[in-house]
Order: sequence, then C-alpha cells, then structure tokens
Amino acid sequence: MGFISSRAKVDEAVIGLNSVILGPSVIGRGSFIDDYVTVGYPIRRKIKTIKHINELDSVSDGARIGEGCVIRRGTVIYESVEVGNNVETGHNVLIRENTVIGDGTRLGTLTVIDGGVKIGRNVSVQSMVYIPIGTVIEDEVFIGPNAVITNDKYPPSRRLQGVVIRRGAVIGANATLIAGIEIGEGAVVAAGSIVTKDVKPGTVVAGAPARPMYGVDVYVEKRRAYESMG
Amino acid sequence: MGFISSRAKVDEAVIGLNSVILGPSVIGRGSFIDDYVTVGYPIRRKIKTIKHINELDSVSDGARIGEGCVIRRGTVIYESVEVGNNVETGHNVLIRENTVIGDGTRLGTLTVIDGGVKIGRNVSVQSMVYIPIGTVIEDEVFIGPNAVITNDKYPPSRRLQGVVIRRGAVIGANATLIAGIEIGEGAVVAAGSIVTKDVKPGTVVAGAPARPMYGVDVYVEKRRAYESMG
Amino acid sequence: MGFISSRAKVDEAVIGLNSVILGPSVIGRGSFIDDYVTVGYPIRRKIKTIKHINELDSVSDGARIGEGCVIRRGTVIYESVEVGNNVETGHNVLIRENTVIGDGTRLGTLTVIDGGVKIGRNVSVQSMVYIPIGTVIEDEVFIGPNAVITNDKYPPSRRLQGVVIRRGAVIGANATLIAGIEIGEGAVVAAGSIVTKDVKPGTVVAGAPARPMYGVDVYVEKRRAYESMG
Repeated sequence: MGFISSRAKVDEAVIGLNSVILGPSVIGRGSFIDDYVTVGYPIRRKIKTIKHINELDSVSDGARIGEGCVIRRGTVIYESVEVGNNVETGHNVLIRENTVIGDGTRLGTLTVIDGGVKIGRNVSVQSMVYIPIGTVIEDEVFIGPNAVITNDKYPPSRRLQGVVIRRGAVIGANATLIAGIEIGEGAVVAAGSIVTKDVKPGTVVAGAPARPMYGVDVYVEKRRAYESMG
Repeated sequence: MGFISSRAKVDEAVIGLNSVILGPSVIGRGSFIDDYVTVGYPIRRKIKTIKHINELDSVSDGARIGEGCVIRRGTVIYESVEVGNNVETGHNVLIRENTVIGDGTRLGTLTVIDGGVKIGRNVSVQSMVYIPIGTVIEDEVFIGPNAVITNDKYPPSRRLQGVVIRRGAVIGANATLIAGIEIGEGAVVAAGSIVTKDVKPGTVVAGAPARPMYGVDVYVEKRRAYESMG
Repeated sequence: MGFISSRAKVDEAVIGLNSVILGPSVIGRGSFIDDYVTVGYPIRRKIKTIKHINELDSVSDGARIGEGCVIRRGTVIYESVEVGNNVETGHNVLIRENTVIGDGTRLGTLTVIDGGVKIGRNVSVQSMVYIPIGTVIEDEVFIGPNAVITNDKYPPSRRLQGVVIRRGAVIGANATLIAGIEIGEGAVVAAGSIVTKDVKPGTVVAGAPARPMYGVDVYVEKRRAYESMG
C-alpha cells in the first residue's frame, strides 16, 4: 500500500505502487522510483514525537530527487536529502538526512550513507559501502565493494571527524579508512588496506597500515597492460 | 498490507500500516514499529511445514518488544526474541530467534544477529555488523561498522564456539573476531584487526593477527587529546 | 499489495501476499516464497524504457525457482536467473540476471550476487557476502560471512575478470579475493586474508597478501581436534 503526500511534486516519473513519498518531496521528470521505496523519511527526533504512523508525512520536510534517476526497491531516502540528475541506487540503499549527491553518481546495493555527507558527480560507489556523517567525496571517485569509511578515531568519542576523498581517487574493495584522513586527488588505495594517514595525490598505497607503493602513473600503466590482456 | 495477530498485545504503540506482527507478540508502550517491519517471524523448521502464508501467524511463538523502542523499516525480528526498553534498530536489521537484547541498546542499519545471541544494556552496534549464534556481548560495548564476529574456528565444522565481549570493550570498524575468543573488559580492538586470541582486559590490540599495543589508559589519553582538538 | 503475473507458473507453492512474481517465472512445487519477495525483476536497460510501474511485468523474461526452496523476505531475484531445487536464501538477498544456482545451495542474509555468476550444488554462502559478475563457485564450497570477491584488478578498468573457486574450497570470514585468481579444490583461505594470487589445491593460505601456511590435511586434523573439544 503506497502513499504520495499531497505536498509532494511528482513530474512525469514512474512511481512504485507500494512506494512512500513523504512531505514536500520533489521527484524529477523521467525518474523511476521502484516499488517499496521511501522518500522523505523523517529524522529520529521527529519519529520520537509522533502518535500515529500517518504523521510521518506531516512532519517530513521532504527530499529532492532529480531527473532521470533510478531508485531501486527498498531504498530509503531521508528528508533534507538532495539527489542530482541521473543518479542510480541499487537495492536497499540508505541515505540519511542532509546529504547531497551529485549528478550521474551511482550507489551500489546495500550502501549506507549515514547523513551529513557530500558526494560529487559521477562517483561510483559499489555494493555494501559504509559512509558515515561528515564524509566528503569529490567527483569521479570510485569506491569498491564493502569499503568502510569511519569518522571517530578513538571510538566512542565526542568528536566526529570526516574523511575527505579527493577527485578521481580509487578506494579498493574492503578497505578501511580511518577518521580524519584525506585521500589525495587521483590516489589509489589497494583492496583490504587499513589507511591510517593522509594519502598524497597520485599515490598508490597498500597494506595494514597502508604505505606508499608507487605513483599512480605506474598503476595506470598496469591497468593498461591488464586491459590489453582481456 | 499489514497484519496484527489477534494473539498479539500492542500497548499504545505506533505501528506501520504494512507491518506484520505475528503470534503472541508484545509491543510495549510508546514504541514505534515502522512500516514494513516483521515481529515474531517463525524459525526455519516451522516455515518448512506450512501450506499457506497465513499460517505464519498461527505457528509463531511471538517476540517481546519493550517500551519506547524505535524499530525501523525492513527490520525482521524472529519469534522467541526479547528486546528490552528504549532499544533502537536502524533499517533492515535482522534478529533471529532466542536472542535477548538489553535496555538502551542500538543496532545499526543492516546489522545481522543470527540467533541465540545475548546482548547487554546500552550496547552500541554500528551499521553492517555480523553477530553469529553463541555470541555474548556485555553492557556498554561499542562495535564499529562492518565488524565481523565468527563462531567456527575451522569452518565448516560441527562445533560452534561463541565470542564473548566483556563490558565496555570497543571493537573497531571492519575488525574480524575469530570463534571462541574473549575480548576482556574495557579492551580495544583497532579497526581492521584480525583477532585470533583472547584479549586481556584493558588492553589495546591491533594488526593481523592482532597483538597488544598498549594499555587502555594510553587509549583514553589519546581520545582526550583527540576530543580537545575538535 | 502483491502481484503474480498471468504468465507465471506457480506449482503448489506458498506465496507471500505482498510478493511480486513477474513475467513467465516458474515457482517449483513445495517452494516457500516469503512476503515482500520479488521474482523476475527486469534488467536496467528495460527499466529505463518503461512508462508505468505495471510494465515491469510485461518486459520481464521471468526467473525459474526449483522445488522445495525457501526464499526469505526482501529477496530480489532478477529475470533470467535459474535457481535449483532446495535452495534457501536469507533475508534481503539480491541475485541479479543470468545467474545459475545449483541444488541445495544456501545464500545467507544480505548476500549480493551481481549477475552472470555460476554457483554449484550444496554451496554454503554465509551472510553479507559480495559476489560480482563473472564469479564461478563449484560444488560444496563454503564462504564465510562478509567475504568479498572482486572482478577488476585495477579499478575502474574496462576488463572484468572473474574469480574461480574450485570444489570444496573454504573462504574465511571477511576475506578479500582479488580479480582473476583461482582458489584450488579443497583449499582454505583464512579469515581476513587478502588473496592476490592463485591458491593451489589443498593449500591453506593466510595473511595480507595471503601466503601458504600448510596443507589442508593439517587443517582437517586441527578441525578434528577442535570438534572433539566441543
């Protein structure tokens, strides 16, 4: 049983019959909102105040979804989220409040964005990636499956410190990035690495803790040889 | 299309329109059961015997949810689970049968508790944590995102051996705990560590395999300095 | 609100009231399709062409589910997937298109199979495992929780190279397998390992990068001693 708020604005989009569009949400032209998707989900503080499930709509500030997006089954997008054009999510993606997602970005199945995150354009986030509050991801970044970003260096502390991933960087599968570090422009983190310090632009790091291996020019050369074997 | 069993007892709670409350489940006063939540889901053996989906209700032994809880969208709580007061789950959390969760505990989005688990009070489990059968987690423990607990040292074997995490311990993001070990009171496991042996109380360990680094007093001092930089 | 396509063939199975069975899908005798399951979900290209959510049915090529299966809540099975007999999935499992799953195989909660994957018989995949396009998993393999398989050695490249896991191999919890490698018959990968090279049949490897430790005969002996302590 779906629901579209009377305050919502849906512009020639495909909406699943069981989808829930709350508050003054906006769905752009040509977007596909799959069945069982929720858009404009209220933050915790509001949930604690309501007396009936129907009030989720009246307390929601809504979310904005751009044009040409594909938002797959089970995805939950909180209120005060801005999703650009031609964004795609896999299944059961979570995007908490105050997050901004740039045009052309893809978020893989089961990826969790815990709110207050800024993600640029044409970013490719694979499945099962964890992205906490305060993370900044610039344009054209690639994040492999199951990578984990953190925001507390000495948990549980009272200080959250975001990770910054600069333009065009590559984070390998199942890598762990420790709170507060910066991954430089075009840098590469090898799969499974534990990154405890800043990574300089154009540097490839690997290991636990991760250490510099070589420049990204070597990496690009290896990629070229690898692709030519295909 | 939701369902509340005629055997269930719901005490001034908010229940989602598409939620399914099976068997003699009890929902405490002031709890919020989001849309698309299932409470009292039957164990495997029972599922194999039913002839129609409606029978899920009649075979369910129900689950108990305390007062003031927030159970978010997509969470599935099996029968014979006891959830204390003021417990919160993120989205799509799974809690299998015969699990007990203490008051004030939080389970992050996509956390999986595979049944037969005992979790104490005011435990903070972040997103995407895996907790298998036989695990014991005492009060005030913190478990970082994507941490993995195991219960079989030589898989696949016929012996499951739970991990015990003592009061106030901290498990870092993406750490792996091997079956049968005990993490001592107040101990700290660094992010990404593979812990193969017991960790003594008040000890910080890191690495793969994890080795002792220093005492937790040093960790607390580092945390204090870190927080003061914020 | 569920939906069963007029083109679907459902043979004495239990089907959830909110389940969606699309296109010419086939559900075998005695299978249990839980509530909120989707079978026959269309591939991306088709989704981009439809004008109304109802068209998901007409564009779907359907999926085949064998007899005696248990497909749990939230699982999404794409079109052109073939699932054998007595297969079970946990909750919120994703199986993308052109995947074949053999008889008796179990896929744990939140496991993601990204399409074009071949999995044999009696394989045991635990929770939260990531399996990308091109992976081949032979019979009787065991894959521990949160293991991550990759298919691009120098991401993001234009060449995807599957991992092959031979009969009876064991992959430990939270292990990472790099694109293009082969895990030999009966080999064992220790929990948390990063495997960058082929593993010979009957060999146990551990570490980051993983190195040979001893033969699987030693492992089996350790398992036997471990089980006898239970």
